[in-house]
Amino acid sequence: MADAKADGIKALTFDVFGTVVDWHGSVAREVRALASQKGLRVNAVKFTKAWRAGYKPGMDKVRSGELPWTKIDVLHRSILDELLAKFKIADALSEEEKTHLNLVWHRLKPWPDAVRGLKRLKKKFIIATLSNGNTGLLVNMARNGGLPWDCVFSSETFHHYKPDPETYLGAADLLDLQPGQVMMVAAHKHDLRAAATHGLKTAFIKRPHEYGRNNNPDLASEPEFTINAESFIDLADQLGA
Amino acid sequence: MADAKADGIKALTFDVFGTVVDWHGSVAREVRALASQKGLRVNAVKFTKAWRAGYKPGMDKVRSGELPWTKIDVLHRSILDELLAKFKIADALSEEEKTHLNLVWHRLKPWPDAVRGLKRLKKKFIIATLSNGNTGLLVNMARNGGLPWDCVFSSETFHHYKPDPETYLGAADLLDLQPGQVMMVAAHKHDLRAAATHGLKTAFIKRPHEYGRNNNPDLASEPEFTINAESFIDLADQLGA
Repeated sequence: MADAKADGIKALTFDVFGTVVDWHGSVAREVRALASQKGLRVNAVKFTKAWRAGYKPGMDKVRSGELPWTKIDVLHRSILDELLAKFKIADALSEEEKTHLNLVWHRLKPWPDAVRGLKRLKKKFIIATLSNGNTGLLVNMARNGGLPWDCVFSSETFHHYKPDPETYLGAADLLDLQPGQVMMVAAHKHDLRAAATHGLKTAFIKRPHEYGRNNNPDLASEPEFTINAESFIDLADQLGA
Repeated sequence: MADAKADGIKALTFDVFGTVVDWHGSVAREVRALASQKGLRVNAVKFTKAWRAGYKPGMDKVRSGELPWTKIDVLHRSILDELLAKFKIADALSEEEKTHLNLVWHRLKPWPDAVRGLKRLKKKFIIATLSNGNTGLLVNMARNGGLPWDCVFSSETFHHYKPDPETYLGAADLLDLQPGQVMMVAAHKHDLRAAATHGLKTAFIKRPHEYGRNNNPDLASEPEFTINAESFIDLADQLGA
């Protein structure tokens, strides 16, 4: 059974924010610590969710052509500046503190199963990021978190954000593979559905706490995906890795 | 002393063919083994040198615009087909054998100091390829040889071959670094001189046997380079890594 699902697959490409790393917990923790250190009253969970919520509209401006190519680090900073104003704490932070806080996205912590699962998967498959994060962000995150990527593919590699086809097809092309030899791994069904449209295999990873503990994300398995998995360990089991 | 040379450097970008891996020994060995298995008379050293010699003219056609963007795998195959005809062995090999032989460049062996040196350097610096090899080639080579890259930058990332400025400056930009925070590491002075023109630091690695045992390559240290080193171990020593 395991081998049937792995048939012909040579490489796994991974969504990163939410799938490999816990952005919600990592960002909220740093925001809370900074607020406490500076004596500021900030709802860290609301702040974190608002920061993340600004991300898709920012990318959409690039995808539609309203903005020229812009790295996520820059989009993150622009959203951060708006939020600091909205939460009335812009004046309480120095430029250096803002720069450091903006780079929290380089320091996101891997989910507990991620590194162990990736090490198993790497023995059998090429493992690569395929993330909207910029290259430097992904490289720094991998060094901070011990993520053993064979290579780092970013929206920046293609100057296109997911779900533009150039990202999924571009990753396969750079690895000299056919789309059907590549499996997209993500905790987000829309990302997998876009990948499948272009012929990639798909693995849905259930991350119940991507948006924190008190949420009710859509974790239903879908027969349309090649694999539905509880974790990277389960994914490795199902792929015989 | 060690720390002065490392001042401000955040990332090392590596030329690969000849600098990290022994293309001459690896290719000649496979050509010799194949010839022996098939009962063919081929001078493996001459064949290897001719194959490598066809590489720069191929890239130059892309650099000048005579050819559209073309991966090294494809350039290698076109040179290989010419050589098989010239050595009068084209009919002795099946298409499958030719395809396999062409991918010998994915199986080049690291120099004995390379993996150990890279592991030390990785603790202190981002380590990335900056090679004219294509991405898939570099990824496969790293998996075959245990090369622990943080990320893989290829001519293919930029659709430009070295020494085009887009390669050196592009690598720095993708890592969100200034050119002076990046050190180009190579066994070839022309590669380092091009990198230095664009503001990168430089490390010259002496590889006396890049073209086999009976050669007399230019191994003289040059004060124009930030570092002149005997090996990756020596480089790590000099950089305090």
